[in-house]
Amino acid sequence: MRTVYVIGIGAGDPEHLTLQAVAAMNRTDVFFTIDKGEAKAELAGLRATLLARHVTRPHRVVTARDPERDRSAPSGRYAGAVADWQERRAALYERMLVDELGEDGCGAFLVWGDPALYDGTLRILERIRDRGAVAFEVVSVPGISAVQALAAAHRIPLNRVGRPVVVTTGRRLADDGPPPGVDDVVVMLDAVDAFAALPGDSWDIYWGAYLGTPDETLVHGPLRDVTAEIVRRRAELRSRKGWIMDTYLLRRTR
Amino acid sequence: MRTVYVIGIGAGDPEHLTLQAVAAMNRTDVFFTIDKGEAKAELAGLRATLLARHVTRPHRVVTARDPERDRSAPSGRYAGAVADWQERRAALYERMLVDELGEDGCGAFLVWGDPALYDGTLRILERIRDRGAVAFEVVSVPGISAVQALAAAHRIPLNRVGRPVVVTTGRRLADDGPPPGVDDVVVMLDAVDAFAALPGDSWDIYWGAYLGTPDETLVHGPLRDVTAEIVRRRAELRSRKGWIMDTYLLRRTR
Repeated sequence: MRTVYVIGIGAGDPEHLTLQAVAAMNRTDVFFTIDKGEAKAELAGLRATLLARHVTRPHRVVTARDPERDRSAPSGRYAGAVADWQERRAALYERMLVDELGEDGCGAFLVWGDPALYDGTLRILERIRDRGAVAFEVVSVPGISAVQALAAAHRIPLNRVGRPVVVTTGRRLADDGPPPGVDDVVVMLDAVDAFAALPGDSWDIYWGAYLGTPDETLVHGPLRDVTAEIVRRRAELRSRKGWIMDTYLLRRTR
Repeated sequence: MRTVYVIGIGAGDPEHLTLQAVAAMNRTDVFFTIDKGEAKAELAGLRATLLARHVTRPHRVVTARDPERDRSAPSGRYAGAVADWQERRAALYERMLVDELGEDGCGAFLVWGDPALYDGTLRILERIRDRGAVAFEVVSVPGISAVQALAAAHRIPLNRVGRPVVVTTGRRLADDGPPPGVDDVVVMLDAVDAFAALPGDSWDIYWGAYLGTPDETLVHGPLRDVTAEIVRRRAELRSRKGWIMDTYLLRRTR
């Protein structure tokens, strides 16, 4: 039976890699990568570094062109747009598994952060399994997420004593606000500066971009004091590097 | 200046260790450990295994007896009881840092899971810094948390597409129920079988104990079908081993 590893490789620091991830990479025959275009070239480079540094056995790297995704879908149609794109990705991945992997072969997808947090790979593999054209076992290898890299960089716990913490998206925060009864909110994938719409007197923010990389940038403080600075730096960094990966913790003041 | 590493060592699998954690352990002069009594002896053994396997330079291990903690405090006084216990722990840790660490020495606390998630070490070090008796720099090294080990073991994402996920405690879930608008809830530190009080038709549960260890035990299914089994197995495992570490994801059905 084919084995497909989904390996979390951390948030950007090559040292985030776990011993389990290194071991799984060294059982892999074929690494599947998706070409996401120029903006992510730097990330692809980091991935190549990890392979060169840690994989000691012969292996192949197979790259496919990512299906186009409709990022202009309005908020209410977001899940639908993602599902449509995932269906096309499933067809692409399925073809790669069938064409490139022998019947007892091991393939791997290296994913940023943790496969369980805002990454679609496990879901797409489930979808392929449901299509029934190819049989394989999935092994998920956890990795350090940007959420954890953020907390470590600021040297803070995510939760307060005995209290919940929610992880959500910028889009969801902008549409719904913070969930009632939750005072600690981690936001990922924010393309709309959702923090800027919150009451500045009620929240502290811990923000970080390019976490774990040489470009790591951190800002924290009362939201009213640092909102303008974060909005400005996000725009500057995005324009300078062509892409941004950032996340933040909102902590309600008492 | 003294450096104090707070190193996440993962949820139980020695292979959860990151390369960054191994590097930090190899810059450490003194490992500080807390004797939590017989029930945690097995965990302490795992910690010793990690040191023996990965630390190649001379180092010392200093063990202190954990202050007693009032676990019988009622729900409303929980935070107060924790704060009181943390103050006594702060005094203990402060004495260890002063007595055992030279002025440029590196100390380390190895913590289960991730230092940012339901672990008090960072908070206690902050408290010691506020006391002002000893100066040190804190470096937090993220680790694979039980939440991530749970998701990996079940091969599932924690969140659904574009949706939030909350991490909370069993006590909080029992007192407040799941936060409104959140359909995916991870529960840690549940001493009261809080899942058993939820409507069984509305939730699926993914449960795991001793994640990443040879004793790993997994159950998943509709809550109405598996609640009794999980309650029974928790009790059996706790009684057989003398302690239990478990966590679960509740996923609202659609």
